Amino acid sequence: MLQVGIIGAGRIGRVHIQGILTGVPGARIRGIAAPHLTEEIQSLARAAGARTLTEDYRDLLRDPEIDAVLICSPTDTHAAISIEAMEAGKHVFCEKPVDLSLTKIQMVIDAARVSGVKYQVGFNRRFDHNFQALRKAIAAGKIGSVQVVKICSRDSEPPTAKFVRSSGGLFLDMTVHDLDMVRFLSGSEVEEVYAAGSVLIDPAIGEAGDVDTAAMVLKLRSGALALIDNSRQAVYGYDQRAEVFGSKGCISIGNDTPSTAILSTADGITGERPLWFFLERYLPAFQEEVRQFVEAVEHDLPVPVGGEDALQATLLAMACTRSAQEGRPVRMDEFPI
Amino acid sequence: MLQVGIIGAGRIGRVHIQGILTGVPGARIRGIAAPHLTEEIQSLARAAGARTLTEDYRDLLRDPEIDAVLICSPTDTHAAISIEAMEAGKHVFCEKPVDLSLTKIQMVIDAARVSGVKYQVGFNRRFDHNFQALRKAIAAGKIGSVQVVKICSRDSEPPTAKFVRSSGGLFLDMTVHDLDMVRFLSGSEVEEVYAAGSVLIDPAIGEAGDVDTAAMVLKLRSGALALIDNSRQAVYGYDQRAEVFGSKGCISIGNDTPSTAILSTADGITGERPLWFFLERYLPAFQEEVRQFVEAVEHDLPVPVGGEDALQATLLAMACTRSAQEGRPVRMDEFPI
Amino acid sequence: MLQVGIIGAGRIGRVHIQGILTGVPGARIRGIAAPHLTEEIQSLARAAGARTLTEDYRDLLRDPEIDAVLICSPTDTHAAISIEAMEAGKHVFCEKPVDLSLTKIQMVIDAARVSGVKYQVGFNRRFDHNFQALRKAIAAGKIGSVQVVKICSRDSEPPTAKFVRSSGGLFLDMTVHDLDMVRFLSGSEVEEVYAAGSVLIDPAIGEAGDVDTAAMVLKLRSGALALIDNSRQAVYGYDQRAEVFGSKGCISIGNDTPSTAILSTADGITGERPLWFFLERYLPAFQEEVRQFVEAVEHDLPVPVGGEDALQATLLAMACTRSAQEGRPVRMDEFPI
Amino acid sequence: MLQVGIIGAGRIGRVHIQGILTGVPGARIRGIAAPHLTEEIQSLARAAGARTLTEDYRDLLRDPEIDAVLICSPTDTHAAISIEAMEAGKHVFCEKPVDLSLTKIQMVIDAARVSGVKYQVGFNRRFDHNFQALRKAIAAGKIGSVQVVKICSRDSEPPTAKFVRSSGGLFLDMTVHDLDMVRFLSGSEVEEVYAAGSVLIDPAIGEAGDVDTAAMVLKLRSGALALIDNSRQAVYGYDQRAEVFGSKGCISIGNDTPSTAILSTADGITGERPLWFFLERYLPAFQEEVRQFVEAVEHDLPVPVGGEDALQATLLAMACTRSAQEGRPVRMDEFPI
Repeated sequence: MLQVGIIGAGRIGRVHIQGILTGVPGARIRGIAAPHLTEEIQSLARAAGARTLTEDYRDLLRDPEIDAVLICSPTDTHAAISIEAMEAGKHVFCEKPVDLSLTKIQMVIDAARVSGVKYQVGFNRRFDHNFQALRKAIAAGKIGSVQVVKICSRDSEPPTAKFVRSSGGLFLDMTVHDLDMVRFLSGSEVEEVYAAGSVLIDPAIGEAGDVDTAAMVLKLRSGALALIDNSRQAVYGYDQRAEVFGSKGCISIGNDTPSTAILSTADGITGERPLWFFLERYLPAFQEEVRQFVEAVEHDLPVPVGGEDALQATLLAMACTRSAQEGRPVRMDEFPI
Repeated sequence: MLQVGIIGAGRIGRVHIQGILTGVPGARIRGIAAPHLTEEIQSLARAAGARTLTEDYRDLLRDPEIDAVLICSPTDTHAAISIEAMEAGKHVFCEKPVDLSLTKIQMVIDAARVSGVKYQVGFNRRFDHNFQALRKAIAAGKIGSVQVVKICSRDSEPPTAKFVRSSGGLFLDMTVHDLDMVRFLSGSEVEEVYAAGSVLIDPAIGEAGDVDTAAMVLKLRSGALALIDNSRQAVYGYDQRAEVFGSKGCISIGNDTPSTAILSTADGITGERPLWFFLERYLPAFQEEVRQFVEAVEHDLPVPVGGEDALQATLLAMACTRSAQEGRPVRMDEFPI
Repeated sequence: MLQVGIIGAGRIGRVHIQGILTGVPGARIRGIAAPHLTEEIQSLARAAGARTLTEDYRDLLRDPEIDAVLICSPTDTHAAISIEAMEAGKHVFCEKPVDLSLTKIQMVIDAARVSGVKYQVGFNRRFDHNFQALRKAIAAGKIGSVQVVKICSRDSEPPTAKFVRSSGGLFLDMTVHDLDMVRFLSGSEVEEVYAAGSVLIDPAIGEAGDVDTAAMVLKLRSGALALIDNSRQAVYGYDQRAEVFGSKGCISIGNDTPSTAILSTADGITGERPLWFFLERYLPAFQEEVRQFVEAVEHDLPVPVGGEDALQATLLAMACTRSAQEGRPVRMDEFPI
Repeated sequence: MLQVGIIGAGRIGRVHIQGILTGVPGARIRGIAAPHLTEEIQSLARAAGARTLTEDYRDLLRDPEIDAVLICSPTDTHAAISIEAMEAGKHVFCEKPVDLSLTKIQMVIDAARVSGVKYQVGFNRRFDHNFQALRKAIAAGKIGSVQVVKICSRDSEPPTAKFVRSSGGLFLDMTVHDLDMVRFLSGSEVEEVYAAGSVLIDPAIGEAGDVDTAAMVLKLRSGALALIDNSRQAVYGYDQRAEVFGSKGCISIGNDTPSTAILSTADGITGERPLWFFLERYLPAFQEEVRQFVEAVEHDLPVPVGGEDALQATLLAMACTRSAQEGRPVRMDEFPI
């Protein structure tokens, strides 16, 4: 039974606490650290049977009974706490992004290598049942060699301009998942990206220096091509689709819906909208990634998605940002790392 | 926080223990009773934090801290334990069937009325997301007045002849769910049933005196008609569909699948099979029914499905059995109760 | 090149004239007979290149150049003209129904046998691309042995009470197609039928002595079971679906729509309604049945659907009518023929 | 009744002859010109009731009874015959492409303006029922303002290297339809294109200087973005899909299939493949475009798709070719015309 500590009990931290309680039988929550020990968090800690509830995450790092920590604190603390935790000999599961700075991500990767602990990054989408089905079919050779990867990702509601300003922009905040998915599905690195962006939804996003609609073409090292399109607002709900086309066929995934109900009336034949909220859509994936992290620790297996994957996805997102800004394709070898 | 005791820790008992642990926040498992306290059950009891683990369910009925019991013991004990528990002042959630004897079901109904506790029966399908979507759309008037109800229910694997012999037969074991669903979806009682059965899958089922394939037409009191068809073996998986047709439209539900993946190859355009196993298909429904039971107890609400519903469904299943045996439609007023 | 005469140029006659002109390359229209030679019919005859346009269909029967006639006159003349035409040595394609009297249908069958010409009946649905796909898959063994046949047929708009009075009733007018389809898809004759009807759409239909909603269970000689449901009014359009379930799988067909467009909005995910009108839905089937008739004549093959099929479907429809009226299952051996 | 002459009776010429015979009631075929009057063409001319059958298309241009010609001759003759026909006062429907040279296309446009006749170009896809449904929904405001257009077009079988060499390349031969569709669906001109190509299917295509797989991003003048992907070989059939996303929703179209049949077996839930061959898929569209051409002539309406549309699509295809070759986005104002 792996003893884990949870660092940060905001929205995503609570998702992981619930997830471990209800579906990660190999892990027990021993401690929770949060900057403010609200009544809600105290109640959650009791429900979780946590022995330690502290405002100082270092209490968890010092606890010799704790084997691993889940880092769910604010983004700008991820890299530092990651390194500190690994130095304390703890296995680390860190929410994405590791950092927006390539140097810091590299430092985290180095720390993981040196310390020899497991370091997993929270690219939850890789663990979603639909994307898993895609990946498995491709790996099983069902579509032959991959020729085209297409990913469509649209949020149900646009972010505030305030969020946009601190997010690193659409490519680093949103597309980064799709870029990771291109690598995951194709099994190939990317050679060059071309990105185009537009402000079509909220002028305030434009004023904050970002775009809200984007389209990309990627050239992969394997020769395959990838297309991504993003929007910050799909009025019909959170839209998460992908298609991979190959020499022997094509496999695609659509959205999950609350039910399979189809209503036929004089107005048409109508099914339900996709699940609206990303946490609802990917809840089982948040659980599955921790389950696999626990398994990697227990059986000393490679983590399914590590610091190097975070680095590559961040590099790709930076390349897309540069491409959109400079209006030209950007080769990945422009980047020093 | 409702303190519950679990009576019986076989397959369905364990489903409910897991369900409460992972998704019924309002309930805590205080005790578990099982005839043989195997290592597995002891481990489950520890995980559940149960204070009492006993071979005698009466220990749970005597525990004044326990508010409610879930009866998951063998079918032939349901009625007696139900009555005993209600006499001990416990609210009761009882797995289906309450009993195969109408007299005993009536005794349970009487005991519930006299004792004033809540008595809920485990018609889990009413709590499934798809059937709930059907019911809600109908209740919201989306299809106008109900004219035709159609239910198709097929098992993925046939039962053994031994099971068949003690099951009461296809209509009481399997169709009973569909018959309950006709009442639930139409909001109408049934006036007359006609059932036809055939042995097409396994001759041993026929030798055991049962059928493995069945088709029914029901006349409802509202004037609407219902059609049900059942099979003991659908090689493509557990098939659970329904359609309700009315004056303003039609609403139907299909099967749940492991993912939305669609594979296009030279052989065709192929999606995944329905979930194979009924526990997998209805797992969230098993949780939801207990959640609503807990809510009914806590807020003193009527239970969503009670003893009277069990009685009606059983009566209908008996009428179908008689109809198939005698080759004629059977009016519900043939039955004394 | 088969020279054909068209007897009757009402709605269905004109459908066949158009159908031959645009898609039956092996046939040429030599003559058209219609009781009133309106301007529209004269224009159609010119477009068809017909040499003869007459008010007396016997002119066509006397024309030695004419090989075959299509009988599209009013129902009550079908049998008599069929016999007359066959006695004149013409091959006959006759619109359904041949007649509502069993005796007359039998006389037509006898005349066909004696004369040695081809006699085909217009059960157009057998030639529809969807029902053909069902039949071919079953014949190819894709679902193993047939265990359950399900047919759902709903009109988009109810008939007038006046039409109902002369139609022979829902079972003879509407269900007859579905009954033929059960035989066609299952490859089995029917042993017993049970039908229930209700008046839920238009009280005037009830006052005319008919029902507007019906549900049936059929026991087939093979042991398989069939379920049919009919409605005179589906507000979302002409609904024509079927499903055949067997030992190795299940095959089903849905409705045709004007396009594959799917609109996703805040209100849901909406596709187009089924084609509204039966002529639109089955237009290619009207053409295909004539094409196969022409082929049967030219190559002296058995017709794909003949007088005996018409007789059986009519018998089944009569049995359903009797069953619904008397509230009991009706065995087919109750009927003398 | 419009009297038309058909110039060229190869594959596409014969499609138009059949199309007019079976579904363009307003047109009559008066003459057919073909370089070799084979037995097959003579037989077709008889069936069409053509008065003139000639090896010299100028015979048709000289015939004062002929109102319009359909130019179905080899591509390199399109522009010259178009101009000659218009100078002879004939309305012209010309198969695509008008020409691969911008200058010649411009000459054709000028000739049309000067002569005052109708000049329509065979962008048949605009007349397909699915693409029409898309266009109509967008025009009706169902998805609000257009933000993203996505088109996926894949052939079922790759061309020979020989064909590739004379085709102008994938962008001019294949993508040109998709580029026209972007303009048609978005209602906007294109400002800049970026195209990436790869040789993944047949090395011989690469040796012929072309690509067989391509991905594009287009920036539209409206601010919207478009994504196109093409492949020369989809083993599951001719794949023709599109999706348009806007401020109020999203509309998409899928492929047409031979039937709606769905087979459920132990191997999965399988539907039919898309129609295999482009002529089969777009046959009704070939008819519809001529029907609208005839209507434009008869009622003196603007043609639905004219020389200017051909010019724009060709320019876009040339820009894509240049972009893929030079590895950079290409602005449309780089082109002089």
